[in-house]
Amino acid sequence: MEDVVIRTLEKVQLRDPILIEGLPGVGNVGKLAADYLRDQLKAKPLATIYSKFFPPQVYVGEDGIIRLVSNDLHYWKAPSPTARDILVLGGDYQGISPEGQYEITQRVLDYCHALGVREVFTLAGFAQGRVVEEPRVLGAATNAAQVEAMKKFGVVFSRNDPGGGLIGASGLFLGLGRLFEMEGVCLMGETSGYFVDPRSAEAVLKVLAKVLRIEIDFTALETKAHEVDRIAQKIHEAEGRTSDATAPSGPTPREDLGYIG
Amino acid sequence: MEDVVIRTLEKVQLRDPILIEGLPGVGNVGKLAADYLRDQLKAKPLATIYSKFFPPQVYVGEDGIIRLVSNDLHYWKAPSPTARDILVLGGDYQGISPEGQYEITQRVLDYCHALGVREVFTLAGFAQGRVVEEPRVLGAATNAAQVEAMKKFGVVFSRNDPGGGLIGASGLFLGLGRLFEMEGVCLMGETSGYFVDPRSAEAVLKVLAKVLRIEIDFTALETKAHEVDRIAQKIHEAEGRTSDATAPSGPTPREDLGYIG
Amino acid sequence: MEDVVIRTLEKVQLRDPILIEGLPGVGNVGKLAADYLRDQLKAKPLATIYSKFFPPQVYVGEDGIIRLVSNDLHYWKAPSPTARDILVLGGDYQGISPEGQYEITQRVLDYCHALGVREVFTLAGFAQGRVVEEPRVLGAATNAAQVEAMKKFGVVFSRNDPGGGLIGASGLFLGLGRLFEMEGVCLMGETSGYFVDPRSAEAVLKVLAKVLRIEIDFTALETKAHEVDRIAQKIHEAEGRTSDATAPSGPTPREDLGYIG
Amino acid sequence: MEDVVIRTLEKVQLRDPILIEGLPGVGNVGKLAADYLRDQLKAKPLATIYSKFFPPQVYVGEDGIIRLVSNDLHYWKAPSPTARDILVLGGDYQGISPEGQYEITQRVLDYCHALGVREVFTLAGFAQGRVVEEPRVLGAATNAAQVEAMKKFGVVFSRNDPGGGLIGASGLFLGLGRLFEMEGVCLMGETSGYFVDPRSAEAVLKVLAKVLRIEIDFTALETKAHEVDRIAQKIHEAEGRTSDATAPSGPTPREDLGYIG
Repeated sequence: MEDVVIRTLEKVQLRDPILIEGLPGVGNVGKLAADYLRDQLKAKPLATIYSKFFPPQVYVGEDGIIRLVSNDLHYWKAPSPTARDILVLGGDYQGISPEGQYEITQRVLDYCHALGVREVFTLAGFAQGRVVEEPRVLGAATNAAQVEAMKKFGVVFSRNDPGGGLIGASGLFLGLGRLFEMEGVCLMGETSGYFVDPRSAEAVLKVLAKVLRIEIDFTALETKAHEVDRIAQKIHEAEGRTSDATAPSGPTPREDLGYIG
Repeated sequence: MEDVVIRTLEKVQLRDPILIEGLPGVGNVGKLAADYLRDQLKAKPLATIYSKFFPPQVYVGEDGIIRLVSNDLHYWKAPSPTARDILVLGGDYQGISPEGQYEITQRVLDYCHALGVREVFTLAGFAQGRVVEEPRVLGAATNAAQVEAMKKFGVVFSRNDPGGGLIGASGLFLGLGRLFEMEGVCLMGETSGYFVDPRSAEAVLKVLAKVLRIEIDFTALETKAHEVDRIAQKIHEAEGRTSDATAPSGPTPREDLGYIG
Repeated sequence: MEDVVIRTLEKVQLRDPILIEGLPGVGNVGKLAADYLRDQLKAKPLATIYSKFFPPQVYVGEDGIIRLVSNDLHYWKAPSPTARDILVLGGDYQGISPEGQYEITQRVLDYCHALGVREVFTLAGFAQGRVVEEPRVLGAATNAAQVEAMKKFGVVFSRNDPGGGLIGASGLFLGLGRLFEMEGVCLMGETSGYFVDPRSAEAVLKVLAKVLRIEIDFTALETKAHEVDRIAQKIHEAEGRTSDATAPSGPTPREDLGYIG
Repeated sequence: MEDVVIRTLEKVQLRDPILIEGLPGVGNVGKLAADYLRDQLKAKPLATIYSKFFPPQVYVGEDGIIRLVSNDLHYWKAPSPTARDILVLGGDYQGISPEGQYEITQRVLDYCHALGVREVFTLAGFAQGRVVEEPRVLGAATNAAQVEAMKKFGVVFSRNDPGGGLIGASGLFLGLGRLFEMEGVCLMGETSGYFVDPRSAEAVLKVLAKVLRIEIDFTALETKAHEVDRIAQKIHEAEGRTSDATAPSGPTPREDLGYIG
């Protein structure tokens, strides 16, 4: 079979579209943000992406109906005739091998380039290894003009973070994108790295909404953040009791929450 | 070499054939069921499938003659002129890498599509992690009509099982099958997951026989199930004695039988 | 690059040639036997086989000159006009991935088929997990006639050995060879599996020499076998003293010699 | 995408150019040497090499601008009309799989062959497993004439080192280079293998400068070597204090410095 199979669900004409990428990763920040954006915009399905570089897996819905794992493109047509349209890329997995990452990213970029995409925003989490109460949004970009533009939206460009660079789709969509003459920005929400982090996703989306000049209702995302907080709090208390019982060493640091997937 | 090599042994015309897939997996339920069906139907060899995504291995028969590991298609022509023919896919291995799984499944589906296959049943085990006395048959399907149809045959569609989806050939034949306009059902026999389970295979085949309106004599499969029971019982007793000797903690749970391959 | 690159060093016409394969493996029996046969026959270089499925490695000779790892074909033209010519395949490595094994084997078979090869003998070791004083030669073949023929040369066809089949080049050259209409035999010298075993290689070659009706001087191979015996004996004594010193538990079993590569 | 993508940045005509390869590896000796040579020669960018066999990673500069991981070719035009031009190959990574190593090396050799390259020098470290105060430069070459020529420059050709051959780019550029009718030499600076070693890189470059008849100012490289010495010394003292505190067993051997990347 082809390494990557892209099934177009609807033929559309888009106006200077911007690609927003958010796939599973650190704290699931990118995926949470992209999925939420797609839902809030009521973006419509455009294409489904299958690949032998995804796991050989199907999901079974509550109705008993199976669905092959995939990535998916949705589109949103801006209501104003002078505004730009938006493409959102989400999905179940990133490619499960380095070669797979390159192949899938290259094919999706090629497909989006044909749709007119010349600018990409990738959304991701940045693991700090400690609880982050007020997540900042860190940035990286393909050119100096976009670095300056992003700073005005409060994006932090830090000398040291991310030190080792970006690994995975969020970096690759920008790095390979340059081979397609695309410019782009990666927005990284700070997160502990230990659990899914809707609050970090919200911080990222707030920046993105300002950049894209769209309005987003964050109520549902905040509700999700409170739920995660409640679960984290319960684990925290349970661990506190356990450690009290075995050794009176004070409360367990909140960082030790474990991954709540 | 080609990634997948399919050698046709006999050219046949089939009438609206149904593909039944059963390869090695959890409790070997799918393979036991497909092999038993093939033997009971006296299905004839149609094609042999070799692939570089199988292990580089040959088996040596009792006569000293080698055979390269493969998957195999057998066909059965229904005696009634109004009934549908059957293809059975079995074999030594599933593809040993994710890419291999995709490649082999895609090639076999392509081959079967050319033979007229538009419907697929995949047979598998579902690991419960505990001994299952009366295995239920769980289901997943490609459309709502088949879910409803299967329910009438006693297949259970559970909201939570399988939670993580299906991994491997049984899921992929359905998931990729949809790209070939094929519809299909996965029948999963509950099993402990610790040993080969002819009883679970029998439960799956009983449903399938009703769906396909064929008659199957289950005597040999039941004999096999009793053998496994006897071996399991002996291990159970041996473990009971051992644990009695070292600590008077009562009988070892039957779940701890280990894998009897 | 091509997956497998075969460089022909000399164009030759061969008379009904037989391919003898012996690559590194259990006890290095196959490689020892094939290399010794090549040297004794003074077979000439025919082709060098490079592949990206070998390690990315060069060897450095005592003269400081490098050589890329490879497999190699040598040919021997039988002096009698009615006898058959011989091709010997040896080398540094088998393919280091399952796909690589298939690719390399398929390409070499294809190349040898074009040279007229229709019969293959593969040489290997069979690990018994214990010291074997008088190694038998076990066999496997592609057809019943060859099983019977080999029995007359003292080759043992055992119901249970090898139980799990043959993994690697020695099996694959026969299994894939059948897709090229080649028949063949695998000759497996019993060996402990713990160290290189020239004595097992000699047992294999003695059978092969009778089959091919060629004469081989085994002096050098027997010298090598005695060397390995001497080293093994020293290790044995050293271990005996060590275990005497720490615990008077008698001599270390000779099986524990470790791998002398 | 193509397995390896080479983007030419400038079209140049080179005079009998020599390729110098130095990629990350043992002690980073090869990369340190090649990068230093490139900087000292003020070599100009010629081509960028991307590949799906590199990690799916981008680096972020201090200015916040991303760069996809790559290998890079720089060129230097010799000022004298009778001298040979130089190509320097450096980069972030070697290919991360054996196949990837072969693919990338083959493509780069093919590209360089088209530019007229017929001679290759590869630079590497040779791990001795102990601190080396005065690193020798070991050699390996593709022919006897070059072995003799290198000996005159003080390069050591040892019977036993490197015993297991060379693994990775430095060996492969010579081994595969021979398939492109290229001759070459590998220069290996002795190093502990435990930390980056500018002193070993300097030893290698000093030989190379004599061979290429170019002048190199080693001040900056020596400064770097002193820095590494200072860090090593501090770690040494810290470890000394620690081991004094726990057990009065004398100074920690300098070899235990750990990897200072």
